[in-house]
Amino acid sequence: MKINKSRLYEIIFEADTKAGRFFDLSLIILILLSILIVLMDSIPPVHEKYSMLLRITEWIITLLFTIEYMMRIYVVDKPVRYILSFYGIIDLMAILPGLIVFIFPGAQSLLVIRAVRLLRVFRILKFSRYTSAGRMLMIALYRSREKILMFISVVITLVVIFGTIMYLVEGEESGFTSIPVSIYWAVVTLTTVGYGDLAPVTGLGQFLASVVMIMGYAIIAVPTGIVTSEMIRTSDRSNTQVCSNCMFDKHDNDAKFCKKCGMKLDLHPDPEPSF
Amino acid sequence: MKINKSRLYEIIFEADTKAGRFFDLSLIILILLSILIVLMDSIPPVHEKYSMLLRITEWIITLLFTIEYMMRIYVVDKPVRYILSFYGIIDLMAILPGLIVFIFPGAQSLLVIRAVRLLRVFRILKFSRYTSAGRMLMIALYRSREKILMFISVVITLVVIFGTIMYLVEGEESGFTSIPVSIYWAVVTLTTVGYGDLAPVTGLGQFLASVVMIMGYAIIAVPTGIVTSEMIRTSDRSNTQVCSNCMFDKHDNDAKFCKKCGMKLDLHPDPEPSF
Amino acid sequence: MKINKSRLYEIIFEADTKAGRFFDLSLIILILLSILIVLMDSIPPVHEKYSMLLRITEWIITLLFTIEYMMRIYVVDKPVRYILSFYGIIDLMAILPGLIVFIFPGAQSLLVIRAVRLLRVFRILKFSRYTSAGRMLMIALYRSREKILMFISVVITLVVIFGTIMYLVEGEESGFTSIPVSIYWAVVTLTTVGYGDLAPVTGLGQFLASVVMIMGYAIIAVPTGIVTSEMIRTSDRSNTQVCSNCMFDKHDNDAKFCKKCGMKLDLHPDPEPSF
Amino acid sequence: MKINKSRLYEIIFEADTKAGRFFDLSLIILILLSILIVLMDSIPPVHEKYSMLLRITEWIITLLFTIEYMMRIYVVDKPVRYILSFYGIIDLMAILPGLIVFIFPGAQSLLVIRAVRLLRVFRILKFSRYTSAGRMLMIALYRSREKILMFISVVITLVVIFGTIMYLVEGEESGFTSIPVSIYWAVVTLTTVGYGDLAPVTGLGQFLASVVMIMGYAIIAVPTGIVTSEMIRTSDRSNTQVCSNCMFDKHDNDAKFCKKCGMKLDLHPDPEPSF
Repeated sequence: MKINKSRLYEIIFEADTKAGRFFDLSLIILILLSILIVLMDSIPPVHEKYSMLLRITEWIITLLFTIEYMMRIYVVDKPVRYILSFYGIIDLMAILPGLIVFIFPGAQSLLVIRAVRLLRVFRILKFSRYTSAGRMLMIALYRSREKILMFISVVITLVVIFGTIMYLVEGEESGFTSIPVSIYWAVVTLTTVGYGDLAPVTGLGQFLASVVMIMGYAIIAVPTGIVTSEMIRTSDRSNTQVCSNCMFDKHDNDAKFCKKCGMKLDLHPDPEPSF
Repeated sequence: MKINKSRLYEIIFEADTKAGRFFDLSLIILILLSILIVLMDSIPPVHEKYSMLLRITEWIITLLFTIEYMMRIYVVDKPVRYILSFYGIIDLMAILPGLIVFIFPGAQSLLVIRAVRLLRVFRILKFSRYTSAGRMLMIALYRSREKILMFISVVITLVVIFGTIMYLVEGEESGFTSIPVSIYWAVVTLTTVGYGDLAPVTGLGQFLASVVMIMGYAIIAVPTGIVTSEMIRTSDRSNTQVCSNCMFDKHDNDAKFCKKCGMKLDLHPDPEPSF
Repeated sequence: MKINKSRLYEIIFEADTKAGRFFDLSLIILILLSILIVLMDSIPPVHEKYSMLLRITEWIITLLFTIEYMMRIYVVDKPVRYILSFYGIIDLMAILPGLIVFIFPGAQSLLVIRAVRLLRVFRILKFSRYTSAGRMLMIALYRSREKILMFISVVITLVVIFGTIMYLVEGEESGFTSIPVSIYWAVVTLTTVGYGDLAPVTGLGQFLASVVMIMGYAIIAVPTGIVTSEMIRTSDRSNTQVCSNCMFDKHDNDAKFCKKCGMKLDLHPDPEPSF
Repeated sequence: MKINKSRLYEIIFEADTKAGRFFDLSLIILILLSILIVLMDSIPPVHEKYSMLLRITEWIITLLFTIEYMMRIYVVDKPVRYILSFYGIIDLMAILPGLIVFIFPGAQSLLVIRAVRLLRVFRILKFSRYTSAGRMLMIALYRSREKILMFISVVITLVVIFGTIMYLVEGEESGFTSIPVSIYWAVVTLTTVGYGDLAPVTGLGQFLASVVMIMGYAIIAVPTGIVTSEMIRTSDRSNTQVCSNCMFDKHDNDAKFCKKCGMKLDLHPDPEPSF
């Protein structure tokens, strides 16, 4: 079979054919391998022993990713649109650090490279392309974004207020050396993480900390309630019909008439929202 | 355009016009800035270096807030009602600490000022005025207040009982020096915070602590269940209209026509609770 | 008004009259006070200074509780049934420790008394009598008891397995001195408490700990899901009609006919389940 | 009554008869006892004192389990299918370690035995056979497996990214000695466990840690939402019958008659998924 451009597009961008699935799987393994190399290289004894091996593998992976990136640009109809798309930028970010090492070799740049190559970790983000189960999750999260933002701002307000109060109550001897540090303690406590690097020692401080903890224990119910009720709604309301009269598009599954204008709805097949 | 009283009211209290939105945004930035100053000033090295700059900015912000407060009193129809309202008091609390510094200058009062000016943090509470996404959250929380109070009192009962038992089991060598301290430990454990400043060392103590942990891990489901079921009810059940044609009675809040038969629905008075 | 037996019953056991509410409130304050005394007495400096005052207040409260207990026995129709009921035993447990001090005074018994008097903390359990908001919670928890037990037994299985594995992996140098201690660590980790008194130090141990943490973070969804779905059902299905034909009693709110035998249901008023 | 093969099958594999229930209960007690022995034997002082007693009990239990395993093979119609089934393998794993001690006695093998015998802990897995409440839980978890996997992969991506960033920010002085160790820290923090063995000390590190904590605190809502919405669906929607009289289609699982009009429902094949 001759490999033409549209066939290549199928292999690289889609996962419906055997070759496409094989391509995707190879890419995932390559991404995982490149992340593993970054992780391994950060462990001092491994770095000393296998430094050369890791760097060569690193170079080969960068080369393969560069070829992949160029092929993607080649096969798409609108290359600029791909390059500026979210995944286009992620794909570029995955090869840039490796390329910089090629162009600027030398001892001094090594430290800089270390920092830059860590961007390679973002390659892991590519994963979201290879799974579709996350879509419903993202719809539910997207629909509840306002309430989640509201919740986070309430949490931030609470930690600022409690952090300030604890700074006054506990003082510097207990390690609450400034309000920002006290706010850090409040976040650690409210989110029920509780490192214990900072802990109240006075009776009043321990009482206030108890209040923060019980509060944190109770208000965790809020994001959970938001996401859960949104998920139930998302799965109940998977009807994506658009009213031909008023263009309203949030109909329930059991709707036969538009609830906004009373027009009868066409019952076409596709029940999944395009996201 | 002449700026009259009703126009000013629109700008200051509402966010529907361009000027109103700009006013609100400026205020938010100013509030954040004033909080940032309090935070920065509490860090010893920053306090030593930029003390003067911070104090001057502080004064300017207090001045601006005072002007804003007076304008609010001027533009509302019933100034006394505004002053005694929740936001009126919050607005006053935001300027009082700064004003006190003006009236009582001097070295001795500095420490007092520090404590008082921290009330400025309450300015952050103003935020809730600028967002409306929080309303549904507050309705759901308000409706489930009885059950949440019940839950918190059960939690308090549990920590008192477990704190007392652990005081007897672990004793003073493990740091459980008194029942209140043991109750503090129980709160830290039941809420899954777990600082580790107090931890059981005896076998029986570790067994009891495990019971408290698993209990805390399981009963977190209770507030979550309360809030989630209330949120689902809040978003689903606010419309209690019945279609006069087909008697269907589960219409959404925004429904104007019956989704089952297309009949127009009567729109009787707003069913949303005034909060 | 003459205080007869049935009037006394109203005051002591019910909260519908003014006198009944006053009696209940006084009792709650007395219970809180008696608990506060136990807490205070356990703090060494307070114990040394106010020992006598605390003991006298203690005696007075014990006397008042004894009078209350006797009055309860006097006013009920079936005293034995009350004495053997849950609250009868709780009420007795609240006075027994105090009475024991009266009967066996002396230096040696003091230590014993300390332990016994802590049972007084159980007085707090009386609270549940004074609130009714907890009823729906308890119905939801009672209905999901099987699933919660199942969940807790799965959690126990997991901590036993992971505790054993970590005992082998980490060994005694890291503080994992025996399997029970390792299981304690697994409970601390799975429930996301995380004291830090025991923490893995080897790479493999930290990897396994990460698995336990993510597992614990994810399976907390299970009890939450159980309780939430039960609560939604409890509030949806508050219809407590009993079918006059087949005695089935779990009808939905909107049921007009028995779903088990098809018999028409009587629509009587009481919608609240008697628990 | 003569004990024939089918009667033995009833006793061993089923729990509907008196003898069957007695057999199952004995087995559970035996499993718990064998686990208790492993736990006890790991505590140094207990091991020294009761070593012989524990080993003998161990041998007896292994013998009993071996007899049970052989009886299971004898009574089933297709022994090979049982042996290769999940529970067949678990049952074999429960006796293998004990058998190995019989065959290879001697001093050197003792250490190996210790490791192998810990597999005995898997006997606890047998429990799931003796309870049926877990089935609905497992259906709900099974149906949401894709979303849970998606969630876990997002969590892993987040901890890899945040771990890498913290490695750069905090560096080796704070204990963040390599990226894998930093990822371990990120897991400890995101899951709100918070040991405190590793904690940020720089201002930027504490700020980033706060972001991770609030993120972890908020995204715990996701698995909860997944499982809860799936559980509500599992319990609500399994019956898809439509009443032939009034076309009502939301019948409960246990409905035999339409609750709207009293018409008998057709009972078509069991809609419950075979798991």
